[in-house]
Amino acid sequence: MTLNIGVIGVGMIGQDHIRRITQVVSGARVTAVTDVDLDRAKAIAAGLPSAKALQTGQELIDDPEVDAAIVCSWGPTHEEYVLASIAAGKQVFCEKPLATTREACERILDAETAAGKRLVMVGFMRRYDEGYRAMKAVIDGGEIGAPLMFHSGHRNPSVPGHYTSDMIINDTCVHDVDVARFLLDDEIVAARVLTARKNSLASEHLTDPVLFIFEMAGGALVDVEASINIQYAYDIRGEVVGERGTVELAETNPVVVKGSGRFGGRVPEDWRERFIRAYDTEFQEWIDAASRGESTGPSSWDGYAATVVCDAGLKAMQSGERVEISLGEQPELYRTTTITGPTGTD
Amino acid sequence: MTLNIGVIGVGMIGQDHIRRITQVVSGARVTAVTDVDLDRAKAIAAGLPSAKALQTGQELIDDPEVDAAIVCSWGPTHEEYVLASIAAGKQVFCEKPLATTREACERILDAETAAGKRLVMVGFMRRYDEGYRAMKAVIDGGEIGAPLMFHSGHRNPSVPGHYTSDMIINDTCVHDVDVARFLLDDEIVAARVLTARKNSLASEHLTDPVLFIFEMAGGALVDVEASINIQYAYDIRGEVVGERGTVELAETNPVVVKGSGRFGGRVPEDWRERFIRAYDTEFQEWIDAASRGESTGPSSWDGYAATVVCDAGLKAMQSGERVEISLGEQPELYRTTTITGPTGTD
Amino acid sequence: MTLNIGVIGVGMIGQDHIRRITQVVSGARVTAVTDVDLDRAKAIAAGLPSAKALQTGQELIDDPEVDAAIVCSWGPTHEEYVLASIAAGKQVFCEKPLATTREACERILDAETAAGKRLVMVGFMRRYDEGYRAMKAVIDGGEIGAPLMFHSGHRNPSVPGHYTSDMIINDTCVHDVDVARFLLDDEIVAARVLTARKNSLASEHLTDPVLFIFEMAGGALVDVEASINIQYAYDIRGEVVGERGTVELAETNPVVVKGSGRFGGRVPEDWRERFIRAYDTEFQEWIDAASRGESTGPSSWDGYAATVVCDAGLKAMQSGERVEISLGEQPELYRTTTITGPTGTD
Amino acid sequence: MTLNIGVIGVGMIGQDHIRRITQVVSGARVTAVTDVDLDRAKAIAAGLPSAKALQTGQELIDDPEVDAAIVCSWGPTHEEYVLASIAAGKQVFCEKPLATTREACERILDAETAAGKRLVMVGFMRRYDEGYRAMKAVIDGGEIGAPLMFHSGHRNPSVPGHYTSDMIINDTCVHDVDVARFLLDDEIVAARVLTARKNSLASEHLTDPVLFIFEMAGGALVDVEASINIQYAYDIRGEVVGERGTVELAETNPVVVKGSGRFGGRVPEDWRERFIRAYDTEFQEWIDAASRGESTGPSSWDGYAATVVCDAGLKAMQSGERVEISLGEQPELYRTTTITGPTGTD
Repeated sequence: MTLNIGVIGVGMIGQDHIRRITQVVSGARVTAVTDVDLDRAKAIAAGLPSAKALQTGQELIDDPEVDAAIVCSWGPTHEEYVLASIAAGKQVFCEKPLATTREACERILDAETAAGKRLVMVGFMRRYDEGYRAMKAVIDGGEIGAPLMFHSGHRNPSVPGHYTSDMIINDTCVHDVDVARFLLDDEIVAARVLTARKNSLASEHLTDPVLFIFEMAGGALVDVEASINIQYAYDIRGEVVGERGTVELAETNPVVVKGSGRFGGRVPEDWRERFIRAYDTEFQEWIDAASRGESTGPSSWDGYAATVVCDAGLKAMQSGERVEISLGEQPELYRTTTITGPTGTD
Repeated sequence: MTLNIGVIGVGMIGQDHIRRITQVVSGARVTAVTDVDLDRAKAIAAGLPSAKALQTGQELIDDPEVDAAIVCSWGPTHEEYVLASIAAGKQVFCEKPLATTREACERILDAETAAGKRLVMVGFMRRYDEGYRAMKAVIDGGEIGAPLMFHSGHRNPSVPGHYTSDMIINDTCVHDVDVARFLLDDEIVAARVLTARKNSLASEHLTDPVLFIFEMAGGALVDVEASINIQYAYDIRGEVVGERGTVELAETNPVVVKGSGRFGGRVPEDWRERFIRAYDTEFQEWIDAASRGESTGPSSWDGYAATVVCDAGLKAMQSGERVEISLGEQPELYRTTTITGPTGTD
Repeated sequence: MTLNIGVIGVGMIGQDHIRRITQVVSGARVTAVTDVDLDRAKAIAAGLPSAKALQTGQELIDDPEVDAAIVCSWGPTHEEYVLASIAAGKQVFCEKPLATTREACERILDAETAAGKRLVMVGFMRRYDEGYRAMKAVIDGGEIGAPLMFHSGHRNPSVPGHYTSDMIINDTCVHDVDVARFLLDDEIVAARVLTARKNSLASEHLTDPVLFIFEMAGGALVDVEASINIQYAYDIRGEVVGERGTVELAETNPVVVKGSGRFGGRVPEDWRERFIRAYDTEFQEWIDAASRGESTGPSSWDGYAATVVCDAGLKAMQSGERVEISLGEQPELYRTTTITGPTGTD
Repeated sequence: MTLNIGVIGVGMIGQDHIRRITQVVSGARVTAVTDVDLDRAKAIAAGLPSAKALQTGQELIDDPEVDAAIVCSWGPTHEEYVLASIAAGKQVFCEKPLATTREACERILDAETAAGKRLVMVGFMRRYDEGYRAMKAVIDGGEIGAPLMFHSGHRNPSVPGHYTSDMIINDTCVHDVDVARFLLDDEIVAARVLTARKNSLASEHLTDPVLFIFEMAGGALVDVEASINIQYAYDIRGEVVGERGTVELAETNPVVVKGSGRFGGRVPEDWRERFIRAYDTEFQEWIDAASRGESTGPSSWDGYAATVVCDAGLKAMQSGERVEISLGEQPELYRTTTITGPTGTD
């Protein structure tokens, strides 16, 4: 059975997902697209064998030829489309953020809880990266003992001109927020942001780098170095320190070259190179689950927690103080984790 | 457009390819299967949404619902099915060996040459491994200078009971033969096999390990260590030594674990773990090309060369002497290399 | 010329230094020893070809057969012997701490400044480790741009029964304090200590692990993970993040072993194994300088800064707050750095 | 007690050993030097506190102020000075080769055997390298099972103008000959030399690179890649393949640098950088043993075996054939191995 997918928002990310569904993964096709720029939607549809362009996200979600929806429109519109998908009883894949405010996230949690089943997956693709999955498997296997600290490093070679200092929390560190919750299987209860000497290669208005520190409910401590103009590469570092051992992400280079007095390997150029396989795996797993009428992966709850923690992170960055975080009570629906690492890796 | 694929031979490897086409890669489906064990073919077809079981390979190749064929039956039958595919003007993916004798390979070369276009791809999946592709890109980029030596290591944890000493050349080292030709872009003109002290963990009748040495036409020297009972893992090593630098396969572990006085990472357990992505890429590229009516990847000529070199390797192992190798003249059809490494890796 | 050395305090560390002077490094011999336990001093002297046991540190320092002194007695006695050496105009190597209070350190600074020449070297042996020296050379070479952060990891497999929580700052992190000042060539102006979930393998009275955070005068941020019961090894980690690159300590294993599905190498068992060469280099350089009548390496100022920062660290650990640090004005005498990385390493 | 050493031959290597004895290691001093260029000997002696220049090696060996001799004169003179040292009953450290012909080596074996005690150590410094020692400890510990193959790589960035093709065997691979015997604890019984495509960066008269292959008495196979103009660095590679695991030399870089899209570390520039510590350790152990009146390390037998194997290697390179090697019977004196790896490393 082929899953019919409607894509809301066909900008760069939406187009990349369409390419993935059409040319890379198995079991799905794009049957409808829509966009705030309807001409763009029409042009995209014209290039696909079986897709039509529709006027609105609501229309797309209601279309009988759409089994499941992908939301990659502008963040503030996510709530509307996710709620519409829940109302229609259709599985929806929503790019982060789930919604831009705590209240909007809570409305989604309420709607999905009322529906009585999980319908929403949030696009935290790092949970599908083989490195993070192997880290998780090692932690869950008990080999390193209880995790006590997580050192995360999130390094971008540069950021686009429209990037603002808020985005270092909301767009960059949001991934580390989710990964910390995933790896440590715990909620974040307080946040601090320390700023370092500014990188002189960063735009004048940016705070870069920062050290974003979380306290987990169980006491583990997380420090995230976010460097957004580090030039040399897109470098994602991570190490979990346990009671009697550690696990860390390895370099990802497939070959080692020796020349001119040195040995070495590549560090990825950008997030596409680093996480391309994670995106593919994420989509294949979502399509497989959606085809069975099930949801999988990061849930609305995960999207909600990320939004709340990033709000606190922004407050902490502005105030320089420790900010406490309190989530609402977790509905039963979200209590079973369905993401687990693959077997056979460490 | 979806490519309709017929699969000849649905043993372990055939079933794995069906799984790959159905659940992993994009753009194809299995429409027909056949097997020397017809009941097995029927059972497999019954589990697929759109496939029928056919009596013979010839019938499958002739079926109008089959656009392209995959041959993964017993080696001695490959020639017949590949020739039939060529006769039918259909693209065919043939698992190694292309054929079991030099003469059979030459009949295939003649038929394909007469057809005037490439129709055959041979399943040397290592050419699709990101490690070997990155090695090739470094060599072709000129960074290390002209390649002078290639040290290859092919280590199996163990081999099944039916494995014979001939198979260390024909089934194990055949991959190194192809990789050497691929990386160095050159033909093998002589072979030697040296045997080492026998691994006491190997069955009594096996020669293990061996050092299989090739001389390339351009003078580069290749040494392949084949260890087939090395217990610890399935470990594929490779280093090309150039005039002013080297390039070697990195370890493939996604994480590093520290515990009990040591740091370390996994080495793959078996060829499935090591090359799973190479198989996926191989099939996606073949499907993409076949859908465009083109061939790609390792050609009949590559299959022919591998068979001829392995024949020489067997003679060399038996005699202990250097054995010269002479290929026929290469038809024009095969002179353009179509396999190249991906951009963006090193 | 052979340098005649007197050793004050012949406990475990003093004996190890005697072994080093006698059996490892060149250009010195031990001519006198003393200890609070005079019998121990006599026993040690008896085992040396040219050494006598003296009653007191003062007597040893005044002895004409002592050219230079080593102080490795109990911390609270350091001030007295260092001041006596300065008074005698003799070079003195003092194990950390230089002195146990800010005031005592200031008395030493005053005395040495009054003497008009450097006579004191403090035993911060990490500055002689080839890893830290290579890091320093890379930073100073400008390759990674201005340093913005330093992530340090200080992991002990376990600590002895008499270890108290204060010691995690005063005895463990004191090395990271000095290394941060050395690598970043800057003073520490504020400190914070965050505590993580407690390692259940630590004694009940210990705080373990901690994240000790410094702010440098120039704005760089330093985070030191101190884990003192991590079981697996003695593991010293360090990474400096610059504006356009990073430099980090490599693993120290001389060989990689493959077995049982894994590859890996040793992590040192204890500080002796990890820093044995640093101690040897430290002594050779001190002996060479002292033989020329010069001082070298970490100065009284470095010892003073370490004591003041650790005092602030203790306050920060107790209060949970950020604690500002203010050093007195640096005398001219200490303004020229004499420690530099060796050439030829990176 | 200080060991009084006489140095025969004060060219570049002799001067380096004098520096080592004087400034680095403990327990010895240079009391006499001689050289074919007497003026050079006098100049060197003048720069040392306690040394005199003597006319001949014989005079030096006979001098009562010389306890032990170091021979680093021109190879063809080694026999004479080693025999004189044996005759004088003094310990002698002889740089490789022990002697330039099999017959000369046999005369030394006879003399030392007649003397009834080991007096000769040959300067195969790789046995003192922490990498090779750790490899040896792993092999001897049984962790990887019986060793079956040893892959060695010996890469020089370039060679001086006077270097001849014979030297690739006699001066370069001689170290791999000794290391193979050391690691595998076995004698070499046959040799082959295969030549690869010539490095275009090598002088016209040189054969470069070569693959020098040994068969050990116990059946293990050794392949040595010798590349003498590889430009990028001085790179020493080694991997022993056992029945159920492997051990290989790690890279020696103390730090990893990230910049410009890559991570990496240094490979040593030359043999001094790579083996500086091995030379220091070699001398300290020889001095310690000689001070006790004992010999240690690579013996005359090891020097003899190296010379005989290199002779065979030259024949093999000239003929292109396999050459068998037969050593005389090993005198009892040499049957106890005294070199063992240090404890505490792997």
